[in-house]
Amino acid sequence: MSTVVNANNPDPVVVGVDFGTLSGRAVAVRVRDGAELGTAVHAYPHAVLTDRLPAAPDGPGLPPETALQVPEDYREVLRRAVPAALADAGVAPEQVIGIGTDFTACTVMPTTADGTPLCELPGMAARPHAYPKLWRHHAAQPEADEINALAAERGEPWLRRYGGRISAEWEFAKGLQVLREDPGAYARADRWIEAADWIVWQLCGSETRNACTAGYKGIHQDGRWPSRDYLAALDPRFAGFAEDKIAHPLSQLGERAGGLSARAAAWTGLPEGVAVAVGNVDAHVTAAAADTVRPGEMLAVMGTSTCHVMNADPVGGAPAEVPGMCGVVHGGITPGLWGYEAGQSGVGDLFAWCADSFAGGGLAEEARAAGTDMHGLLSARAARRPVGAHGLVALDWHSGNRSVLVDHDLSGVIAGLTLATRPEDVYRALVEATAFGARTIVEAFEGAGVPVRGFTVAGGLKRNPFVMQAYADVLGRPLHIADSDQGPALGSAIHAAVAAGAYPDIAEASAAMGGRTREAVRPIAEHTAAYDRLYRIYTELHDHFGRGGSAALHRLRALRNEAAAAG
Amino acid sequence: MSTVVNANNPDPVVVGVDFGTLSGRAVAVRVRDGAELGTAVHAYPHAVLTDRLPAAPDGPGLPPETALQVPEDYREVLRRAVPAALADAGVAPEQVIGIGTDFTACTVMPTTADGTPLCELPGMAARPHAYPKLWRHHAAQPEADEINALAAERGEPWLRRYGGRISAEWEFAKGLQVLREDPGAYARADRWIEAADWIVWQLCGSETRNACTAGYKGIHQDGRWPSRDYLAALDPRFAGFAEDKIAHPLSQLGERAGGLSARAAAWTGLPEGVAVAVGNVDAHVTAAAADTVRPGEMLAVMGTSTCHVMNADPVGGAPAEVPGMCGVVHGGITPGLWGYEAGQSGVGDLFAWCADSFAGGGLAEEARAAGTDMHGLLSARAARRPVGAHGLVALDWHSGNRSVLVDHDLSGVIAGLTLATRPEDVYRALVEATAFGARTIVEAFEGAGVPVRGFTVAGGLKRNPFVMQAYADVLGRPLHIADSDQGPALGSAIHAAVAAGAYPDIAEASAAMGGRTREAVRPIAEHTAAYDRLYRIYTELHDHFGRGGSAALHRLRALRNEAAAAG
Repeated sequence: MSTVVNANNPDPVVVGVDFGTLSGRAVAVRVRDGAELGTAVHAYPHAVLTDRLPAAPDGPGLPPETALQVPEDYREVLRRAVPAALADAGVAPEQVIGIGTDFTACTVMPTTADGTPLCELPGMAARPHAYPKLWRHHAAQPEADEINALAAERGEPWLRRYGGRISAEWEFAKGLQVLREDPGAYARADRWIEAADWIVWQLCGSETRNACTAGYKGIHQDGRWPSRDYLAALDPRFAGFAEDKIAHPLSQLGERAGGLSARAAAWTGLPEGVAVAVGNVDAHVTAAAADTVRPGEMLAVMGTSTCHVMNADPVGGAPAEVPGMCGVVHGGITPGLWGYEAGQSGVGDLFAWCADSFAGGGLAEEARAAGTDMHGLLSARAARRPVGAHGLVALDWHSGNRSVLVDHDLSGVIAGLTLATRPEDVYRALVEATAFGARTIVEAFEGAGVPVRGFTVAGGLKRNPFVMQAYADVLGRPLHIADSDQGPALGSAIHAAVAAGAYPDIAEASAAMGGRTREAVRPIAEHTAAYDRLYRIYTELHDHFGRGGSAALHRLRALRNEAAAAG
Repeated sequence: MSTVVNANNPDPVVVGVDFGTLSGRAVAVRVRDGAELGTAVHAYPHAVLTDRLPAAPDGPGLPPETALQVPEDYREVLRRAVPAALADAGVAPEQVIGIGTDFTACTVMPTTADGTPLCELPGMAARPHAYPKLWRHHAAQPEADEINALAAERGEPWLRRYGGRISAEWEFAKGLQVLREDPGAYARADRWIEAADWIVWQLCGSETRNACTAGYKGIHQDGRWPSRDYLAALDPRFAGFAEDKIAHPLSQLGERAGGLSARAAAWTGLPEGVAVAVGNVDAHVTAAAADTVRPGEMLAVMGTSTCHVMNADPVGGAPAEVPGMCGVVHGGITPGLWGYEAGQSGVGDLFAWCADSFAGGGLAEEARAAGTDMHGLLSARAARRPVGAHGLVALDWHSGNRSVLVDHDLSGVIAGLTLATRPEDVYRALVEATAFGARTIVEAFEGAGVPVRGFTVAGGLKRNPFVMQAYADVLGRPLHIADSDQGPALGSAIHAAVAAGAYPDIAEASAAMGGRTREAVRPIAEHTAAYDRLYRIYTELHDHFGRGGSAALHRLRALRNEAAAAG
């Protein structure tokens, strides 16, 4: 604690705001110990635009895999959720010394030089490419394929920092899609900016670029963006993309981006001038909340999908190359360390898919009668049987595979079905498949010489004991569980405390304000032994369908796409 | 029409009785044109015994995969359903000139020399091996494995007539199980007889053995049963199994086994002495009802599983060897021709599995509101989408694979799942998978030089237009549809008419009394083209998982069995 604690404000508070896929959540947190004093959620009025634009309700439908958002929805979170969180906390605005934010990523948008989103300009509201593209906008796959093929051909040095694959979800693929499909909008975009940085711009009135998204989503490595030459080879009109629309001095995480502007003070009710922390990403900022910023502490943020983040000691002067990781970025999680990210595209989503659509036979009525929900019922029934008794193994690729295969044209497989297979069996096989996917990631790190010393879980799935036990058993190691249920928002608040000068760095702030329960779930040795055998079958199928043994899943995807286009 | 039509009986009637898995159905049929005048069903009071014997309600449970029946239940069908069918038809018993029967197969039992089932002897009611073993009794797999291994090792010539594999469901495997597990019961069994022949024995008072079950289930080929040498090598105590307990002059299908005994006349209300036809099997006798007894006319009896039966011209003097067929038997369907049988272990069962347990998300309520059942709702929704739009392919092996892989340790696979996959998509993929399985069988016949000139469907699934269209499209050929909804019972009645001398042979009787609607469903060319592409993916997975590319499904089965045994 430093000068921000004074007689006028003996027990200061910070606000963290987590901008998720469908809503934003604000939390008011005590600087001293991280106590979460109050919280509030505001759902985005427009949620995700996948079919039509609100400005063109009768216009042509949006193409498949399109996922857009409306920037005003984000501002609305500042106006609604922040004051509501303070009210919930019973905290006076004057107690607040800083605000931090985190965002989904890569959620990225075109703006003018002053940060105005293109879609807010006159005459632009009916053009899809003027809108923010949500992280799960997957329509830029052809552009990602081009980016990867050319980078591999030219031996671009940054490619290996991303497991050899740039995702269709990231800044360059999405930007190239805009150029190709709406060159006019591309030309009008002075800036191409992560929503994580845009929201900070809205708060403090000046542009910053955080080291996290710049590295993980913006291909910034070793002080440089991809070269003009490379970009020109992709498309001559794309040559200046990085220099003109992205380049900006980077800010380190935990830094103060600026003071809260008068406009943003009016929105939020917070005092003008309080510290605004540099932007961040939901998963990465959670490492602060779970107190897992030390090297080798892997954090799995488990929700609809899972993001794995881990700081590591450098191996020699450079980071290790982990096959299929999403990225490794210097200062990407905390300043001064190499931060690794890996991911599983579908986790809780898969369980919901099973529970919501594939649990028939009167299970819905049974769940109601038992006073639980479908997840509770299926988990309880699944947990009753011995490992392997369902005879199933699944590939958890319903949303494609992020790590370690980096292939979104893959799809899910369930093998071993019989007429005796019940919904709880499939549910369990899906839970296990995601655990096998997590194990595949851990083994990829360790195989690359990056030790994983601990495995910590944050995110909504930490509350499902059946899922947690399956992960401990499959991984064959204890799970630590993050204490907070609002990891990203708490993490953002911790960053705000650092930005406000209350702590010298993120590690110290995390130790004071974040936390986890160590060895909350321990593996059961005989389960682990049985899972080892199932895992070998998983790995066989994983490699067969994912590493070139069979093109069946890609052929099915191509057929599906053709049929959808014709139908 | 011959001498059986006379002034005293100008419009004679025959009775067919179909003994199914859970009930027996009698139908009264006009000899002149096959009109079904009346019908009645009687459910077996004991259904299928899988857990305990009625005589030992507190005794030890029956072992897994055991499926037994009670012979008195079969007699009860004669007492109840036959008179009820006549009453329903408004037919006087004096009009009836014959009775024919068909049975599930291989359903086989031990009896004394006079045909008394062992389980009806004093002191035997608590011994499981004294009871008839239902076709789906699968506990004799170890014995079947021995039979196959030894036959392959010795190069037994009959093995190739069964696609290289004798099933655990058949007479020799089940008989060997009795010897091994209850040598006392084995020793007391003077006869080991198909229920198909036993019921005829009950009707006419003398033992016959029909060429159909003798060939398909009893390994009778080229006038011989397996040799004493071979059987002794299996087990010295088994050396006389064929000679002592099975051997008997064979009767051809459509022959008169004898006249109705006074006892059976009292049971049924039919006149003593009317013709009793030789026993038959449900699927095979349906060929007569569908008028598909000419060479190259494949009949698919589609219900919970599918049985394919087809007569073929001999290629040279011997039948062609079709890989993975269930069997080829001279006179097995009609006298004088080689009759082929193939099968799919799970068809309608798979659709029910999906509809009953995996259609959640409120579909049950929707189906009720729409006044349909789940099959109707899922079929209607599935039919709306273009071929391939679901992006799925399934392997239809939830009950293992009968033809062409003959492997019951296989299990089902679904590939191509995404979060957008809905129950109707999986339902459709399962329907298509069974159609691909049927196509695999048709291609195996044609690849072996046995032309398939027509494809006719009987059985309950013929009433589902979506399923029928999918089959026509996948097969790329028109479907003929059997007219009768009671194919086996009508087929048995046709055999009774032949046995009674009303027609010179089965072919003529079928033409007059049976029938089908030709080209009732025609393939849609663009569907067939799209299905060709899906079928290639099916075939890749089929061969990978079914022909040695991957042992994953066998490993899953082994794990499941171990877990079940331990749990």
